[in-house]
This record gives sequence, structure tokens and C-alpha cells, in this order.
Amino acid sequence: MSETATLELTHVQLGQAAVTREDVVAREEPLEIRVEGRSVAVVMRTPGHDEELVAGFLVTEGVVTRARDILEISQCPSVNNEYGNIVDVLLGGAVVNWESLTRHVFSASSCGLCGKTSIESVFQKFTPLNPNECSVLSARSSDEELASKSSENCALRTEHSSPSLFTPTITPSLIASLPAKLRAAQETFSKTGGLHASALFDLEGNLIVLREDVGRHNALDKVLGYALQRNLLPLSQHILLVSGRVSFEIMQKALAGGIPILAAISAPSSLAVDFARDSGQTLIAFLRGETMNVYAHPGRLLSPPQP
Amino acid sequence: MSETATLELTHVQLGQAAVTREDVVAREEPLEIRVEGRSVAVVMRTPGHDEELVAGFLVTEGVVTRARDILEISQCPSVNNEYGNIVDVLLGGAVVNWESLTRHVFSASSCGLCGKTSIESVFQKFTPLNPNECSVLSARSSDEELASKSSENCALRTEHSSPSLFTPTITPSLIASLPAKLRAAQETFSKTGGLHASALFDLEGNLIVLREDVGRHNALDKVLGYALQRNLLPLSQHILLVSGRVSFEIMQKALAGGIPILAAISAPSSLAVDFARDSGQTLIAFLRGETMNVYAHPGRLLSPPQP
Repeated sequence: MSETATLELTHVQLGQAAVTREDVVAREEPLEIRVEGRSVAVVMRTPGHDEELVAGFLVTEGVVTRARDILEISQCPSVNNEYGNIVDVLLGGAVVNWESLTRHVFSASSCGLCGKTSIESVFQKFTPLNPNECSVLSARSSDEELASKSSENCALRTEHSSPSLFTPTITPSLIASLPAKLRAAQETFSKTGGLHASALFDLEGNLIVLREDVGRHNALDKVLGYALQRNLLPLSQHILLVSGRVSFEIMQKALAGGIPILAAISAPSSLAVDFARDSGQTLIAFLRGETMNVYAHPGRLLSPPQP
Repeated sequence: MSETATLELTHVQLGQAAVTREDVVAREEPLEIRVEGRSVAVVMRTPGHDEELVAGFLVTEGVVTRARDILEISQCPSVNNEYGNIVDVLLGGAVVNWESLTRHVFSASSCGLCGKTSIESVFQKFTPLNPNECSVLSARSSDEELASKSSENCALRTEHSSPSLFTPTITPSLIASLPAKLRAAQETFSKTGGLHASALFDLEGNLIVLREDVGRHNALDKVLGYALQRNLLPLSQHILLVSGRVSFEIMQKALAGGIPILAAISAPSSLAVDFARDSGQTLIAFLRGETMNVYAHPGRLLSPPQP
């Protein structure tokens, strides 16, 4: 099934007679994910790269971490699957918490429900990056804050800085070069205007994989599934670029993939920022032209040589 | 809790030293929804209008249809609710399908899983609008298609047309006037760039209510909850405008509220279009300046008087 659908619409321009046009829209179809015969979720997705979507979904649910954890992802052979929208996963011995996998929600803990408890519940499943430096930072947070406020280069590193516990490091100009590469590779979006994109780059700024979907979470799941299938996890030497906004859930999925640097064209939410600061991930947003805002861990960005 | 959070970030412009700035981001926090003490969902939402969000959630889940179906929505009084992120709903006798309410997924039916079965499963809960005309249209679909292709005004109605079974009718220029009203009323977005908006208008184009949220579904649920609490459902004489894209789920929620006309600034998905065509809802998208695309049921739009 193709990623787009062509249909007839009525185009209206005020003051003129309406005209009929053909145009393409992004396709959206349900996909039922079964694990060893049990239905665990139905996601509304753009068809294409379904195996990656399912593999990535299982990565972000914490069920699998290596390619060999999945023996097979196959279309259900039942007569009811004429549209190819039902897939079944055969696991290679991974232990499944069925209750957690079918509900997808965390509940209020004994210390209440807030952003912080949501973040901590994710950290029980996925280890934060650079946890040692995180605790150092938090132990001396008042000094750090002071330093960050007074320092003109705001904790961006210079070539002469002492080596950082935060790795890898990259230049802002490399980050600024990524959106153009994303747009150049975004085939479907230009046709429909209706798709979210998620793209993985290496530290030289080479595009590794780009996936698009009507659901922003699906686009990222597909990227993570691609990486799982090629044994690239954890993606500790990679940069993720997303076309839209960054929510808590996007950060959670990026951490499941071990991605240290996430950049977005649009805005982050407060909880995405809190998450990144706690998880040790570098979060860049409003990446437009030659400017960007760094909301968490700017230490992975090398400051330009001063004249 | 406010709808935004102020935080420090590092602003980078290539070739210049990075600077520290304060900026606001949209707040995102979890909300646990309990119904008569049972936890049914945790949604990540922008705090504010939480009672509307919960009421609208129950409308779109098909649990309630009238204000009196809800006796009370209250913060859980437990010691674990210090952040105000856990609410409990006391129902006024509504019958709850707990299995459906806690899983939120439909499964493959005996005729398989595809967009069409997804739409039909929604129609089992929410009646399509103008079902009679729908069946007339489908009975003579080949003639209709022919007519729509050959007719220059593409099924927009003229003042002299025979009365339509599709009501209400409005002018394209009224629709074109709505985005400016949305933007004027959108307080938080202009500050953060991170919120989806959902706005309800009457047939004269007066703004009834606008709600914003990090989640586009939440913004619409808040609007529907507002309407439920004021006994405005079904919203048969109203227009919904959403700031972003239109997916299957947005159409489903709009139908739960009985909204006949939905307009969007951005693109629809294929399944949103299929849904609207089957449900009898008018779907307008790419509403920009003086132009718009009508994807379903243009008959509710009055064509301008011809010179």
C-alpha cells in the first residue's frame, strides 16, 4: 500500500467559482500489533516500513534491545488480514510484561503523580545517559547555575576545555546543516503536507535513515526499528532530527534508543526539557536557519573558535 | 499551575558567542483520570481546564452525552495528589464498558482490519450525521461522481438550489475569516510556539470557546467538555477550527460532539477524509488566506453569487 492517496477535492478561492482538483494526502491506516498471537496495540500509521515500526515500538516499550530478540515479524496469515494491517511478532526469548505492554500507562506512585514521577518511571526502564555527571551536576547545582548565568559562552565547550564526560561533541554549524538535508530527503511531505519526519544522522552529518508518518511517534519508532534490525543500538554516536515539536514521549523514545543529541525544528514542552536535563540528553529546538535554542546539556556543542 | 513554564536556555547563532536567555515553553504534565475510583487513563496535557478535558474525554469515549451524566469531577483527596494531577469522576448512572474504556483500541473484526472497519467501529458508538442522504449518495454514486467532475461549481450550493438535507450551510468567506480570530485569541501559542489550538465558532463566526494544549486531542477534548458542561451537545449549529492537521481520531472526536463542519489550517490524512465522507461531516483543510480545500461534503458551503 502506498504512503499517499490521490483523491478529488473542491478548491475554493474567495470570489471565484470553486473548482474540482486532484490532490494527494498522506495515507493513514490502522495497524494491529500482536506479540506471539496476543493483540497488544492498534496504531494509526502511514503504511510502509511496518516491520520497522513494530520493531521500534517494541524497543520503546522496553521489550527488545537487540536484533536477535525478535525471531520474526510476519503478516498474520488469517483470512481476516486481507489488507496487511495485522502483524505478529515472534520473540527470541525476551521476557514480556503483558500488563505493562497492553496498557501503556504509568500510574501515580506513592509520591504522587507529576512530571518528575513520569520521568522516574521511564528511568526504571531506560538508563539515563552519563548518570555520573548528572549526579555531579546535581550535587553542585547552585555553583553550576551561577556559572551558567555568568559565563558568556554558556557552557558550550571550547577546544581547550577539559575533556567532557558528555560525549560525543559536535559543532553548532553541523547541527544547522541538518534541516536542509531532512527537507531534501523528505519525499512524501512535499506532496501532502501531512507527515511528520524523523531522521537519524551520524556525527559527520550524514543521513542514516529518514522515516515519515502521520504520527510523529510512529516516524521515530520506524527509525528505531531500522536501527535495531541493523544492530546499531544504542545510538550513542548519532543525532536525531524531528520535523515538529518535542514532547515527553519523543524524549522517552529517543532515550530508549540511547540517542544523546536530539534536535527539533519546532518547540519543546516543559516536560521534554525536564526529561532531557535529567536523562543527560542534549536537547536543541527551534532549529531554524543559523539559529537554535539549546534547552539541555549544551556541553556537547563545541563553541566556535573566538577571533 | 500555569500553562507555561519559564526556563533558561542557550541561544546559538552561528559565528557568534552563545548567550543565555530566558524563554517560555508550553507546560506538559501527566493527568491521571479515574472514573469512580478506577484509573482509566493517564494523558500528558497542558494544565488548565482539567475538568473540561476529563468531561470531553468521557464524551469522546462514548461514556457521557449530557451534563447530568457527570455528578462530580474532583481532585483526588489522597495525600499522593499534591500536584493536582489526579482527578476522579463520579457518574450519574451512565453505564460504563470498563474493558473498552481502559484499552482504547478496537481490534480486527471478522471482515479484517482496515480504515473502513475502523470507521465502522466508530459508527457503532456515534451516529453519522445525515445518514439518509449518505445512503442516497452511495446508492447513486456513479451519477454523483460524474456530476461532481463535470459541474463547474463542484456541488457548492447556490441560493437557488433545492433545499439540502445537509444543514447547516455557510459561506466560504465566513470560513476564511476564522483563522484570524483563532490567532487573535491564541494567547499561549504566541508565547511558546508549542501548543495546538481547537476553537468552536457559531454559524455567524463568533468564537464560542478556544482551548490550547500540547496534545491536539486534548485541545479538542477540552472544547467538547466545555460544551458538555453547558448542555450544548450535539454541536449541530457549530464549526470547529483546529490549528494543525486532521487525523482519523480528530474526526472521531468531532463526530462524538456532533460537529457538522470541521476546518483545519493544515493537511488531512486519507482516513480523516474517508471518515468525513462516510460520516456526513464537511471537512475543510489547508485553510489559508482566501483559499481552502474542501475534502468532504462541500454542499454545506454556499457558492458566491455569480456576476
